[in-house]
Amino acid sequence: MKNIGINGYGTIGKRVADAVSAQDDMKIVGVTKRTPDFEAKSAVENGYDLYISAPEKESQFEEAGIEISGTADELFEKLDLVVDCTPGGIGAQNKTDIYEKIGLKAIFEGGEDHDAIGSSFNAEANYESNLGKDYVRVVSCNTTGLCRTLKPINDIAGIKKVRAVMVRRGADPNDVKKGPINSIVPTTEVPSHHGPDVQTIIDDINVMTMALLVPTTLMHQHNIMVELEDNITTDDVLDAFEKAHRVLPVQKSLKLGSTAELMEYAKDLGRSRGDMYEIPVWQESVNVENGELYYMQAVHQESDVVPENVDAIRAMLELEEDGEKSILKTNKAMGIL
Amino acid sequence: MKNIGINGYGTIGKRVADAVSAQDDMKIVGVTKRTPDFEAKSAVENGYDLYISAPEKESQFEEAGIEISGTADELFEKLDLVVDCTPGGIGAQNKTDIYEKIGLKAIFEGGEDHDAIGSSFNAEANYESNLGKDYVRVVSCNTTGLCRTLKPINDIAGIKKVRAVMVRRGADPNDVKKGPINSIVPTTEVPSHHGPDVQTIIDDINVMTMALLVPTTLMHQHNIMVELEDNITTDDVLDAFEKAHRVLPVQKSLKLGSTAELMEYAKDLGRSRGDMYEIPVWQESVNVENGELYYMQAVHQESDVVPENVDAIRAMLELEEDGEKSILKTNKAMGIL
Amino acid sequence: MKNIGINGYGTIGKRVADAVSAQDDMKIVGVTKRTPDFEAKSAVENGYDLYISAPEKESQFEEAGIEISGTADELFEKLDLVVDCTPGGIGAQNKTDIYEKIGLKAIFEGGEDHDAIGSSFNAEANYESNLGKDYVRVVSCNTTGLCRTLKPINDIAGIKKVRAVMVRRGADPNDVKKGPINSIVPTTEVPSHHGPDVQTIIDDINVMTMALLVPTTLMHQHNIMVELEDNITTDDVLDAFEKAHRVLPVQKSLKLGSTAELMEYAKDLGRSRGDMYEIPVWQESVNVENGELYYMQAVHQESDVVPENVDAIRAMLELEEDGEKSILKTNKAMGIL
Amino acid sequence: MKNIGINGYGTIGKRVADAVSAQDDMKIVGVTKRTPDFEAKSAVENGYDLYISAPEKESQFEEAGIEISGTADELFEKLDLVVDCTPGGIGAQNKTDIYEKIGLKAIFEGGEDHDAIGSSFNAEANYESNLGKDYVRVVSCNTTGLCRTLKPINDIAGIKKVRAVMVRRGADPNDVKKGPINSIVPTTEVPSHHGPDVQTIIDDINVMTMALLVPTTLMHQHNIMVELEDNITTDDVLDAFEKAHRVLPVQKSLKLGSTAELMEYAKDLGRSRGDMYEIPVWQESVNVENGELYYMQAVHQESDVVPENVDAIRAMLELEEDGEKSILKTNKAMGIL
Repeated sequence: MKNIGINGYGTIGKRVADAVSAQDDMKIVGVTKRTPDFEAKSAVENGYDLYISAPEKESQFEEAGIEISGTADELFEKLDLVVDCTPGGIGAQNKTDIYEKIGLKAIFEGGEDHDAIGSSFNAEANYESNLGKDYVRVVSCNTTGLCRTLKPINDIAGIKKVRAVMVRRGADPNDVKKGPINSIVPTTEVPSHHGPDVQTIIDDINVMTMALLVPTTLMHQHNIMVELEDNITTDDVLDAFEKAHRVLPVQKSLKLGSTAELMEYAKDLGRSRGDMYEIPVWQESVNVENGELYYMQAVHQESDVVPENVDAIRAMLELEEDGEKSILKTNKAMGIL
Repeated sequence: MKNIGINGYGTIGKRVADAVSAQDDMKIVGVTKRTPDFEAKSAVENGYDLYISAPEKESQFEEAGIEISGTADELFEKLDLVVDCTPGGIGAQNKTDIYEKIGLKAIFEGGEDHDAIGSSFNAEANYESNLGKDYVRVVSCNTTGLCRTLKPINDIAGIKKVRAVMVRRGADPNDVKKGPINSIVPTTEVPSHHGPDVQTIIDDINVMTMALLVPTTLMHQHNIMVELEDNITTDDVLDAFEKAHRVLPVQKSLKLGSTAELMEYAKDLGRSRGDMYEIPVWQESVNVENGELYYMQAVHQESDVVPENVDAIRAMLELEEDGEKSILKTNKAMGIL
Repeated sequence: MKNIGINGYGTIGKRVADAVSAQDDMKIVGVTKRTPDFEAKSAVENGYDLYISAPEKESQFEEAGIEISGTADELFEKLDLVVDCTPGGIGAQNKTDIYEKIGLKAIFEGGEDHDAIGSSFNAEANYESNLGKDYVRVVSCNTTGLCRTLKPINDIAGIKKVRAVMVRRGADPNDVKKGPINSIVPTTEVPSHHGPDVQTIIDDINVMTMALLVPTTLMHQHNIMVELEDNITTDDVLDAFEKAHRVLPVQKSLKLGSTAELMEYAKDLGRSRGDMYEIPVWQESVNVENGELYYMQAVHQESDVVPENVDAIRAMLELEEDGEKSILKTNKAMGIL
Repeated sequence: MKNIGINGYGTIGKRVADAVSAQDDMKIVGVTKRTPDFEAKSAVENGYDLYISAPEKESQFEEAGIEISGTADELFEKLDLVVDCTPGGIGAQNKTDIYEKIGLKAIFEGGEDHDAIGSSFNAEANYESNLGKDYVRVVSCNTTGLCRTLKPINDIAGIKKVRAVMVRRGADPNDVKKGPINSIVPTTEVPSHHGPDVQTIIDDINVMTMALLVPTTLMHQHNIMVELEDNITTDDVLDAFEKAHRVLPVQKSLKLGSTAELMEYAKDLGRSRGDMYEIPVWQESVNVENGELYYMQAVHQESDVVPENVDAIRAMLELEEDGEKSILKTNKAMGIL
């Protein structure tokens, strides 16, 4: 039973905490928080020991009636591995300032640069190459989404070139400060940074991406065009998606024709926090024409990387040598379809 | 163990089904659905027997691979009581066309008129007057929200006049057809119908309401001004809200200063579908000045009436004579704070 | 001075009326309306004679205090050409039921099918082939936007294949009934119908399109990838866009990095109704890499087709034989950059 | 012909510039800008001399190809009066740091505190008391909206107490950074600051306000309840609104039942930038019951204060002693109904 901690109990951190707790070979020893807010309060209510990363705020936690178990530094001493879910850029600082100094293995999220961490992770695509590593970055929600569906296509047909347009949600559901309220905001750097990020996982893949922001909070949506090496049919692709891990073919004809209805479906499945860990692909959109594959998928930005974090822990601590076995174990514990 | 059915497994119906299943004195025998969509599919996946209300669509359900157990009429024969969660206006038709003819007790939702059903229900305010009734209407989400907080105020201080402005969500989260996308749409009938609806629950209360629609999906928000009979303080009111059932004082200072953050909190509480059954009242907004009380509250339109339906079943089937006891029993089974 | 009428004084119709009025070789004789609403009222206030298309509603117009000049049929008799701006599908009916019977030339909008009308129009691309035609369809806002920028690229470099992802606004600004409020709704028919529509204007162009709806009202946004025949540079493309009619290169660095800021710019330019007749292309997004051109553009769905309607009138009535001259004349009268 | 300058050519500043230019007794000598963006560019294109408030940025303006006429300090020397439209709080600093030192009369906007400026202005309510003043604050869009309709009611019936709930737009149309995207955000300070602000204009009025933010960009919406001293009818109120300056009764029955449709109407009226300077009141919402008046109105936050600025100039420079005459003169020049 390995001892895991979460540094930064926020959108991703709280989900990873629950996912780790659902496994039988690892457990959460504690989580950290800077600010005494409702998330800190519910961390304690949900049974997690809370450590504060800003010791000078101890009295604020007391006033808010939130029990703390110590400081972040005290937590780190008890751990086999920390999952760093702090805001983008802070993780890389923590690596050099803290984790390397005390010799603590650490996972970082997609807000960090590949180069700052050294290794990037996607369970299906490169589990084995991360076995025993000390510092690993689980790639971002969007990159994870692209890897999940491009890997099986690459396996069955070979990929010449991918073109993907990523329609990103403007802000997370509970982020009420960020807009836009009524606008489309293109990322005018074309190609965007998402393509190179896929290449940190799948070597030599030729991926060109464009991205934009829209006024919604629920999910990202991807429009993907793949020039194929080999001659395959639409059914071959549907079959590959059906077999792939953490990819969920969905039907518009069952009233699942939007990101909102997909989120409703996740709630109906009884998922914790209404999460959708899989990448849903709209079956009706999958189409091979003249050697090119077209399809549309969605990405639940708050949760698709959560099972990847669990698998990354298992790889780094060498709890399991076979990626496939880790994926199946994680999926079963989390109720992934 | 009473046999309950749900006619119309949609936004409200599926939640009532789960809430009934969580009780120990009633169970779900089956649910009905008109269309073979993802909700029908997940009904079966969640273990409910599915009956179809449009028998001519049987083949469509078959094609979609959704197993059915019979027709709605066949279901009704097996029941002690049906909860009718069909769209507004259909319920009243079902009452005369079906339930009265076969002598089946039925609960209706707030989309039906009080006069068409004959009796309206709110557990805290008038449980006992609905004991043994055959046909009862659980009032709408907004009326339920008003009753929950006005009742305790009326009890401690007496109410001269209530003025409430209700800022309503434009559509439910999974309703992607309805707008507005970027507009405020006032209901220019002033006072609105919500005031009279409160009077079907709390006799003789003087309530004036105004309402409007805004482009959000999560919750309604109420701005309430109460002229009081007696001299009380802000603390008296906070105390009354703290003690009231299904009212949840929340603090903006804990980052719960918006409907979005409240919904996030409900997810963190581990609630089924991320639901918020209680009426959250912002503590910082509660203020008594010159004999008038001001406060702001939110209403989760998808779920606040759900526990009320459970209590209404108990009253109508006389499973429990004391409203308070039913409320506590329901709350415990549903994890209500 | 040719006599023009507008059948359907709504979003497009009212703009075409003003654009025609700004020309010196044509004038508006009258406009039609079905319903006595604020648009009917302002038509009269703006000096247009109003004819009603539903004669039985005459008394409703009277009650609303809106002066009418006769019925639609009476208007048609006075015209050299009618611009039919009725809702999609009605135009084709009007063609066979009315215009063909009385021998009236008519322009239709993009909501009609190419095959039902027989000829499609974009001023820059095929003005001359519509000279003297009786029935012409001005293609939709999205197709117009694609033609405006693809034509000059095709001219300078030749196009192998176009891939375009079209992020569409959910509803027009004044359409408060339509959603989605918080969702992305993909059009799962892939490729979408927009590609073939471009081919009604530019023969033999290889265009593949994907489309989706997002919760905004202001503009559509296009993400375009063009495989080129010839070797050209990013500067060659910027130069071609600079020279093209009704294409407006804009800079994110001037705070024009979103559809909302573009609409603000149109207001600041003093445009009627704040309209943006040009297709803005974000300069920073234009990029040629390995023989493929990438760029992003926006489409003001309410107005980009308006000058096209003026040019179509001129072509059909043979007021001008040279498309280029008509474009420049229309642009000057409308203040197009 | 008085010489006027605008310090801060943004949302309000650019509109005041155009409104001043439309008068025959004052003119714009120049406007200032800090950043070389599209607004700076269109200032020059619209014929205004541009002065920069951050002299060190001169080269940035040059690079952007935007011609400048000098520094802000150079502009101030040429003026009879400056309208300070800088962001909230900066104006008060400018008053002490600049305007008082050089003896320049200045108008400030609603983002400044009453106490910092010394006098507040609304043309209808207190024009005469601001005659000849050196420093005057035009109250905020919301306060202006309340004063416009409360003043005539107070005049005909006397006001005992006003309760108003103000549903505010989350951000201006071109502000793409600010949210919320999908949330209602109440201002939990109750009563809000808007009530006291009305009292800086109408002495001794008893006003209680509550406020909240919603995800829309177009207009604020007010829900107003007025306890009256005297016995009047709904028709008396409609009559008073009809006669009041800059109040526009509108009918939902003419499809003007939302803020979006009101903005469309303003565009159809040919208003500069599609602005709505009047306060629209929904006729159907006006209702007197038991001595209390209820009504709903909208406020175009970008423009309702613009004519007030013109009148304030006239009062401060004593161009006109009679407020009524100034209002009529301003209205005529701006096309106000």
